[in-house]
Amino acid sequence: MFKRFKIPEATIGRLTSYSRFLKEADEKGVTTVSSQQIARATGVTPAQVRKDLAYFGEFGTRGVGYNPRELYNYIMKILGLDRRWSVAIVGAGHLGTALSLYKGFAERGFDITCIFDADPEKIGKKIAGLEVRSLEELSQKVKEYNVELGIVAVPAAAAQEVVDIMVGAGIKGIINFAPVNVSVPEDVVIRRVDLASQLEYLTYHLGETR
Amino acid sequence: MFKRFKIPEATIGRLTSYSRFLKEADEKGVTTVSSQQIARATGVTPAQVRKDLAYFGEFGTRGVGYNPRELYNYIMKILGLDRRWSVAIVGAGHLGTALSLYKGFAERGFDITCIFDADPEKIGKKIAGLEVRSLEELSQKVKEYNVELGIVAVPAAAAQEVVDIMVGAGIKGIINFAPVNVSVPEDVVIRRVDLASQLEYLTYHLGETR
Repeated sequence: MFKRFKIPEATIGRLTSYSRFLKEADEKGVTTVSSQQIARATGVTPAQVRKDLAYFGEFGTRGVGYNPRELYNYIMKILGLDRRWSVAIVGAGHLGTALSLYKGFAERGFDITCIFDADPEKIGKKIAGLEVRSLEELSQKVKEYNVELGIVAVPAAAAQEVVDIMVGAGIKGIINFAPVNVSVPEDVVIRRVDLASQLEYLTYHLGETR
Repeated sequence: MFKRFKIPEATIGRLTSYSRFLKEADEKGVTTVSSQQIARATGVTPAQVRKDLAYFGEFGTRGVGYNPRELYNYIMKILGLDRRWSVAIVGAGHLGTALSLYKGFAERGFDITCIFDADPEKIGKKIAGLEVRSLEELSQKVKEYNVELGIVAVPAAAAQEVVDIMVGAGIKGIINFAPVNVSVPEDVVIRRVDLASQLEYLTYHLGETR
C-alpha cells in the first residue's frame, strides 16, 4: 500500500539510518523516541524525519513519539528487509574479497552465498569460507542458492558481460562497483556505486568554506 | 555566490552524473545538449535536471540548450573539482588495497598520495607504487603531501582512533568505510559509506514489484 508513491532515493538512504538508530534504542530498552532524537542521532532535521515517515502513513503519537521496535519493524518491511537475501559476488580481486569479508551485510539480512571469477588462478581458492567458482557455474549456483541479488566487482571492461550473465541467470537486483555504466532490462534494478563521487560530496562541502 | 543555499545531497550526486555525460559529449565534439538529453543519459527527468541546475544560477539558452564544455566546467567548479586533491588512505587490507588501485579517482582529480596501516606486517609493502607507512608517520606525511582528504578502510573498532589521528593531522574531509558512526569536530566533513545500504536500495525497489 505504501509503495504507490514515488519515494525520493535519499529517503530510502535515511530510512536505513533511522532503522539502525531505532534498533539500538530498542536494544537499550527504550520504549519511546521523538523525531528530534531520531534526527539528532542521524544528522538530519526533525522535520525531515517526519516528512520521510509521512510517505508511508501515520506513525507515532503526537507529542509522545514513536515506539522504536514497532517503527523499526515497519521500516525494515518497507526496505524489504523483513526476510534474508541471498547475494552473489562476481570478482574475487581485492574489492570482491573485501566485500565478501564485510561484516555489515549479514546483520542487515544479506548472505553472501557464492563468489565467482573468470581467472583460473582464483577459481578454487577460498574466501570467507566460500569457494571461488567459474562464471560457467553461475547460472546453476544462482538456482541452487536462490540468489536474487548480485554484486559486480570486476574491471570496467568486463562489467557489461558479467551483468548480462547475471541477468540471464535470473538475478533481479545488481550493485555495480565497476566505474562504468551498464544496461539491464527494465525488470532488473541496477545501482552503480561510484567511489569517486563519494569524495565529491566532501570537496563540494569543503568548497563551501573556501 | 551559488553556495549560499542549502543544496540537497542528492543534487550533488546528480551533478556528478551530469558532469560525466557533459564531458563525454564535449569530447565527441557536441556543442549543444538539451536537458532532455542530459536527463536520458543519467536516468532522471528533464525537470529534475533543470531544477538541479537552477540552484546555481541561469544556464543555457531557452529552446536551445547548454554548451557541454561550459556547463561541465561550471559544475566541476561547484563540486570543488577545478583543482586536484591529495588523498590519504588508512587501512591496507583488501578494501584499502582495492581503493588504492581504483582507476576512477585520478580521472576526477583525486590523487592517492599515501597509504597507512597499523600492522607491522603491512608496513613497508608497496601498493599501487606507494609504500605502506605506519600511523606514526601520518601527521608528517599529511604535511609533506598536502593531504586534505582521508579514506578510512579499517575495522569498525579502529575507526574512531584513526579519524582522530586524521583530524589531528589537519585533514578536513573524511570518507568512512568502516561500519560504524564516528564523530569529528564541526569544521571537518565526514561521510560514511554504508555498503549494506547500497543493497537496501535494491531490496526496496524489488519489494515494490513483489
